[in-house]
Amino acid sequence: MADLASPQTGTPVDPANWTCPAPIRDQPVVVMGHGGGGALSAELVHDVFAAAYGNPVLAGMGDSAVLHLGGVRLAFSTDSHVVRPLFFPGGSLGDLAVNGTVNDLAMSGARPACLSAAFVLEEGTELAVVDRVAQAMGAAAEAAGVTVVTGDTKVVESGHGDGVYVTTAGIGLVPEGVDIRPQRARPGDAVIVSGPIGLHGIAVLSVREGLEFGAEVTSDTAPLADLVAAMLDVTRDIHVLRDPTRGGLAASLNEIARASGTGVKLYERSLPVPEAVANACGFLGLDPLYVANEGRLVAFVPPAHADAVLAAMQAHPQGTGAAIVGECVAEHPGMVVVATGLGGTRVVDLPLGEQLPRIC
Amino acid sequence: MADLASPQTGTPVDPANWTCPAPIRDQPVVVMGHGGGGALSAELVHDVFAAAYGNPVLAGMGDSAVLHLGGVRLAFSTDSHVVRPLFFPGGSLGDLAVNGTVNDLAMSGARPACLSAAFVLEEGTELAVVDRVAQAMGAAAEAAGVTVVTGDTKVVESGHGDGVYVTTAGIGLVPEGVDIRPQRARPGDAVIVSGPIGLHGIAVLSVREGLEFGAEVTSDTAPLADLVAAMLDVTRDIHVLRDPTRGGLAASLNEIARASGTGVKLYERSLPVPEAVANACGFLGLDPLYVANEGRLVAFVPPAHADAVLAAMQAHPQGTGAAIVGECVAEHPGMVVVATGLGGTRVVDLPLGEQLPRIC
Repeated sequence: MADLASPQTGTPVDPANWTCPAPIRDQPVVVMGHGGGGALSAELVHDVFAAAYGNPVLAGMGDSAVLHLGGVRLAFSTDSHVVRPLFFPGGSLGDLAVNGTVNDLAMSGARPACLSAAFVLEEGTELAVVDRVAQAMGAAAEAAGVTVVTGDTKVVESGHGDGVYVTTAGIGLVPEGVDIRPQRARPGDAVIVSGPIGLHGIAVLSVREGLEFGAEVTSDTAPLADLVAAMLDVTRDIHVLRDPTRGGLAASLNEIARASGTGVKLYERSLPVPEAVANACGFLGLDPLYVANEGRLVAFVPPAHADAVLAAMQAHPQGTGAAIVGECVAEHPGMVVVATGLGGTRVVDLPLGEQLPRIC
Repeated sequence: MADLASPQTGTPVDPANWTCPAPIRDQPVVVMGHGGGGALSAELVHDVFAAAYGNPVLAGMGDSAVLHLGGVRLAFSTDSHVVRPLFFPGGSLGDLAVNGTVNDLAMSGARPACLSAAFVLEEGTELAVVDRVAQAMGAAAEAAGVTVVTGDTKVVESGHGDGVYVTTAGIGLVPEGVDIRPQRARPGDAVIVSGPIGLHGIAVLSVREGLEFGAEVTSDTAPLADLVAAMLDVTRDIHVLRDPTRGGLAASLNEIARASGTGVKLYERSLPVPEAVANACGFLGLDPLYVANEGRLVAFVPPAHADAVLAAMQAHPQGTGAAIVGECVAEHPGMVVVATGLGGTRVVDLPLGEQLPRIC
């Protein structure tokens, strides 16, 4: 298991012939890394789910599916939320359940409209805890401008759950002329991050493990649809949006590089890593590029619009810390590299599993 | 817990001033009955979820929400599936995950279009088991004419799950002129059931408890959207549709009676209870009216159309056993009664909890 949890496999990716270093077919059972949003997750989706019920929309591999139905373009997405503990500095399972799906919809440019909420409750859980989760969902839904219109509740015996699991799905409307998906990254695109990275993962880890890193680290969980709308007011021609949750910025950028057949080059000195996150990562041996965010996005924007989009982001409450952190390049297709402060470059692999399980 | 699992509370309902005999506010923790689809579930939804994020669509309490988005009428629904065991005679978790959401959409008259699928996997589960569930979902989706367009996978530590939980959500299009919801039941409506009742619950119970009841009982899990389309071809003026899953026909009819302010009168001799189900229920002290179905619907149809709709159902593979089993009445509003073979009547209460936990 130690290998699966390591942030990097240590070997450079050969993008032309990439294979998982530990194919799941060789592992007869589910391991934590299958839920990590990295290579093991991708193999599970490819070998099991896509093999069983694959189709072109599912194969699009965006944060949400975009489909035509009854003459309108809808975004549709789902996430199960199993974060532990349920409450952490800056948020709770309820916030993630709403913001996670709202943000997945926003990453296709959609205006989120409504959510479903399905609960799997563990027998013996205090109802006051369920109530706190529901209240957080209500407040988060109001803040995000969405309504929860349908739901379900199941109860499992004590020892078969973990208090509360919540699965949300959501529907949004994609505006005319918007076509945002990982395949559209192009060499020359500016890579913009909307703010400081790594806060959510470190916040959850600190309370779970009882660690302190000087200043308290607070999760960045937040809805991003309004920020995306402000960006689309500048130009509809945004190529890619992604919220770097599990697997962090490293996983999101690797997925985009592979889907588009381009390369990504990051500037290490431009990456907005808060001091407390850097300290915690140093102490724990983690790489901030692999730590989860729940209120950040990464955008690929054509160079002609990059400065204007950046300015619109910085003028928005959810984007005050936005920065251009890299560029899309034609070299090393399918691969992400970072130009270090010392003048060298290093490869940023797709993570295999997950450094921090059950982070969302 | 014995009381919560009993099929009936034993006391007649006062529909004008109905209160749960064991308000959840007096119980500080989640009990199995909160997931049973009966009175405890309803209280949880009312006191916790609707209090936190209620709105008119959520309050509609149909099997699916119907909403206007971008000029089209969509049905939207979700269900978490935690059935144990994962595989049972006639079906599996994968079948339920697809058919359950497809049927919820169909109960508002919608044509189901696409599904999401979110997995919570338990560490250590054999991948071959996950694969079997996914394969069953693929086959069920193909049979129901829907595609799975988006998904998610989370993994929880061993001892915090039960192999595989699957939460599906679905979107469908509601045809023009269709307005099917529990509030539309009217005195005089014929109450039609699409086939034999109780098969799913008894099938799961028999394999779970290692019981045998002479002939093997097989789950009725099946998609019902095509049957609904055939019914709507006869008339768009179908008032109510419901698939009587958890809590069985008793729970569905009580919900309709309360939502519409009408009464329901069943004819005991007309109820299609298979002999094997009757035997099992007699042996176990269960009432078939409270046993879950996963491939049946109950319809409230205006008397002028009842015979034609019944004929269309009987001509459809999913409705060969359809029968008129009762009528909607003005008497005893909010209450369901059954006219027994001996000439008397008995009240059919809303179940409090669930006679058979984790049936879907």
